[in-house]
Amino acid sequence: MNKSLVFSTVGRLMLVVPVLFVPCLIVSLLYADGHALVFLAGICISLAVALPVALLVKPESKQMYTRDGMAIAGLSWILMSVLGALPLVISGICNYIDAFFEIASGFTTTGATIMRDIASLPPSMSFLRCFTHWLGGMGVLVLTTAILPSPNGAGASLAKAESSGPSFSKLLPKVGDNSKLLYLIYTALTLLLVIALKICGMNLFESILHALSTAGTGGFSNQAQSILDYHSTAIDLVISVFMLLFGINFALYFRLLAKEYKTAFKNEEFYLYVGLSAVSVLIIALNIRNLVGGFFPALEHSLFQVGAIISTTGFASADFNTWPNLSKIIILLLMLFGSCAGSTAGGLKLIRVLLLFKLAKREIGKSFAPRKVKVIKLDAKSVPEDLLNRIAVYFFIYIAVIILGVLTLAVSGCTVGESISGAVSCVSNIGPAFERLGPMENYAWLPPVTKIILSLLMIAGRLEIYPLLILFFPSAWRKS
Amino acid sequence: MNKSLVFSTVGRLMLVVPVLFVPCLIVSLLYADGHALVFLAGICISLAVALPVALLVKPESKQMYTRDGMAIAGLSWILMSVLGALPLVISGICNYIDAFFEIASGFTTTGATIMRDIASLPPSMSFLRCFTHWLGGMGVLVLTTAILPSPNGAGASLAKAESSGPSFSKLLPKVGDNSKLLYLIYTALTLLLVIALKICGMNLFESILHALSTAGTGGFSNQAQSILDYHSTAIDLVISVFMLLFGINFALYFRLLAKEYKTAFKNEEFYLYVGLSAVSVLIIALNIRNLVGGFFPALEHSLFQVGAIISTTGFASADFNTWPNLSKIIILLLMLFGSCAGSTAGGLKLIRVLLLFKLAKREIGKSFAPRKVKVIKLDAKSVPEDLLNRIAVYFFIYIAVIILGVLTLAVSGCTVGESISGAVSCVSNIGPAFERLGPMENYAWLPPVTKIILSLLMIAGRLEIYPLLILFFPSAWRKS
Repeated sequence: MNKSLVFSTVGRLMLVVPVLFVPCLIVSLLYADGHALVFLAGICISLAVALPVALLVKPESKQMYTRDGMAIAGLSWILMSVLGALPLVISGICNYIDAFFEIASGFTTTGATIMRDIASLPPSMSFLRCFTHWLGGMGVLVLTTAILPSPNGAGASLAKAESSGPSFSKLLPKVGDNSKLLYLIYTALTLLLVIALKICGMNLFESILHALSTAGTGGFSNQAQSILDYHSTAIDLVISVFMLLFGINFALYFRLLAKEYKTAFKNEEFYLYVGLSAVSVLIIALNIRNLVGGFFPALEHSLFQVGAIISTTGFASADFNTWPNLSKIIILLLMLFGSCAGSTAGGLKLIRVLLLFKLAKREIGKSFAPRKVKVIKLDAKSVPEDLLNRIAVYFFIYIAVIILGVLTLAVSGCTVGESISGAVSCVSNIGPAFERLGPMENYAWLPPVTKIILSLLMIAGRLEIYPLLILFFPSAWRKS
Repeated sequence: MNKSLVFSTVGRLMLVVPVLFVPCLIVSLLYADGHALVFLAGICISLAVALPVALLVKPESKQMYTRDGMAIAGLSWILMSVLGALPLVISGICNYIDAFFEIASGFTTTGATIMRDIASLPPSMSFLRCFTHWLGGMGVLVLTTAILPSPNGAGASLAKAESSGPSFSKLLPKVGDNSKLLYLIYTALTLLLVIALKICGMNLFESILHALSTAGTGGFSNQAQSILDYHSTAIDLVISVFMLLFGINFALYFRLLAKEYKTAFKNEEFYLYVGLSAVSVLIIALNIRNLVGGFFPALEHSLFQVGAIISTTGFASADFNTWPNLSKIIILLLMLFGSCAGSTAGGLKLIRVLLLFKLAKREIGKSFAPRKVKVIKLDAKSVPEDLLNRIAVYFFIYIAVIILGVLTLAVSGCTVGESISGAVSCVSNIGPAFERLGPMENYAWLPPVTKIILSLLMIAGRLEIYPLLILFFPSAWRKS
């Protein structure tokens, strides 16, 4: 590994944290919520930490390899959460470990919270939480490659380390242009949502908060009971639709903008996403119809919840903890699967699920006709065998990481249901889980060590595991 | 597929059922339990079904391919359970679906029961249940290849379709000799256990019952509360040790008999098995020590339960339903993993878990040093890449089959905990699960359709999925 390059890049990336605090400071001043000094202190401390590293560490070579990009992603996501936690600590709202958990949950767009009283948070802190979702959703490294000029190979390595899905889809030849384009679509959709929420009767500030949160598929809200508190069908529907939109591969929007309609919809993953969502909405609606007074109110809640879970946002328009077991199991499975690759969502990603099913079908076929060699196709193109093998192993690693989370939660006094759902929820970046980790509950009661491990698991899930894991491989740190 | 060969072989294999009923008939006569006529009727009916197929269907060609062996295994395991269920139905003890579930649970060595009142079962019926475990444990097809002369390639295809683990370990050049040897070791160990149990104070009949059940790693007992009813530390310990012994690859015993001590213990899977068992025993003992009055009684229960679960037997010396959540989660994980390949146990098999971890480690390494090609070794030998890829896909298929079970149970009114633990328990051939499917409960209350699906899942688990799945692939039935 090119350690000097890694550290100097991480130092530069940390500068995103004071930049993140600036709009929070402005919100604090606008609302005179008394936390302006907190954010000013946060800006000073994070600058004092990041600037010396960024300026003083000189990379020996500027050539960045995949491993460097991954280590940068892993390290900077941890440190971003460490620095991003400062305002919550300085203001005395919570202790450092809780703050680290909250901000890691924010950046990874998980939305699991340790806040017991969300409604009483000052506006600037609510903004901080939701803004971390927005930044983390599309990616901080991607943002950097969009803004800053990148040295040799750096852009591609960085963007690849932070993007979701088995292969990094490059829409434009230059990584910087690619990142700019992604952020442009992202910003436009976010603004559209702000307007839609405003029209539905939400005030401007809350519209912005929930738009940031939805766009990043995060799930933080400034309401005690999430979207449920608005008791508005219009708001429910708008957010449902946008959660689902943000779970789609952004390449699809690019193709639509480029008027390549045929290519845009030659996308098996997209159809699986639509089909799986539709089937889940229908089953859950039928399953809960007696609980919420009929099929149509059931459909509203079911659409909202499926959107919230499959897109890994984790908002709540109802307490699914009280729903029948079949609905809960479907929610748990959707948590595991997640949305499309190349979206802001977490989870295993449907493209992997799709290819795993194709692999399974071929494998069963092979068991009785071993000599027939069949190439697996996706969107009418053959998928390289090497990629397929890597996906199968990734599935095992993903489950193994979840099992680590399950054990952690079980040791911490969680029930079987809480341990399993909580671990899936954190690794897949959803937020709420079952029972005492349900949508109307919080993670505050867990022991501090558990919170740290869960934070790392959320980061592992967001970065698709390898960038975090390699930090613990001594051989990765050796000089190349 | 060579359909005529498949059906004629299945017909011949069905003859194992009347043969199975003969000792039950003898037990019935010895104990004068009034069910002799039931078994006589069972013998007549099963002969009337099996004989015509065995005699009248003439195979066009005697060449048996892998696919034929797999279809034979899948079909015959379903039909064996259909015919084996006869005595339970004729005697009026239960309806056909319940009886099918019970006997499928027997042959697959699962040990999940629909009996509400096990203690009042007549001796012959208890013997039937435990004897299906013994036959199913080492395998009915393996038994046939041990006794009957096999046509071209038939022995190998049949034995392979029924044996556990990613590769079929051939100890002797001839399949028939191999099968004979396996059954010899199996019988010797079973007799040893009968003697040991007798010495511990169990009566002869019950010693035989529990020895058959333990050897097949099944779990049926004639006691209402399983081994707990004996309240005997000696019996607990003896059964604990033997459960663990039957979870070891039988190749190890062969090597010991052949005095190849070095080869015998050059076995990474064995060490993983020992290590995993030891660590689990210790953690559970510490976890439950306050519940059972101290560390040493805790150690007894913990050893017994870990042995029962990792070997996929499913006996109970305590109700683990009442244990703390950490213990339950460990039990659930052990259920998933199972024991060594080439044993009578179910589950994923530790050799696969071991190779999956090696694959995962290599994959993470590859992500930061893509050019280094590393060969994966097991017991100091390189493992072919093709086998590794197949294992990774098998893991996904295994989880997918479990998810099918989870959904089935959730639709049937099970809680999240029951659905997950019940599905893992059935597919991994354990028996007991959590909550209302716990070791002191039964599966009687589930809807009939659920029982049929679970029976098929148990058979899928026992045959390592493919032999059952290919029955549903139309392309597999095409003429070769």
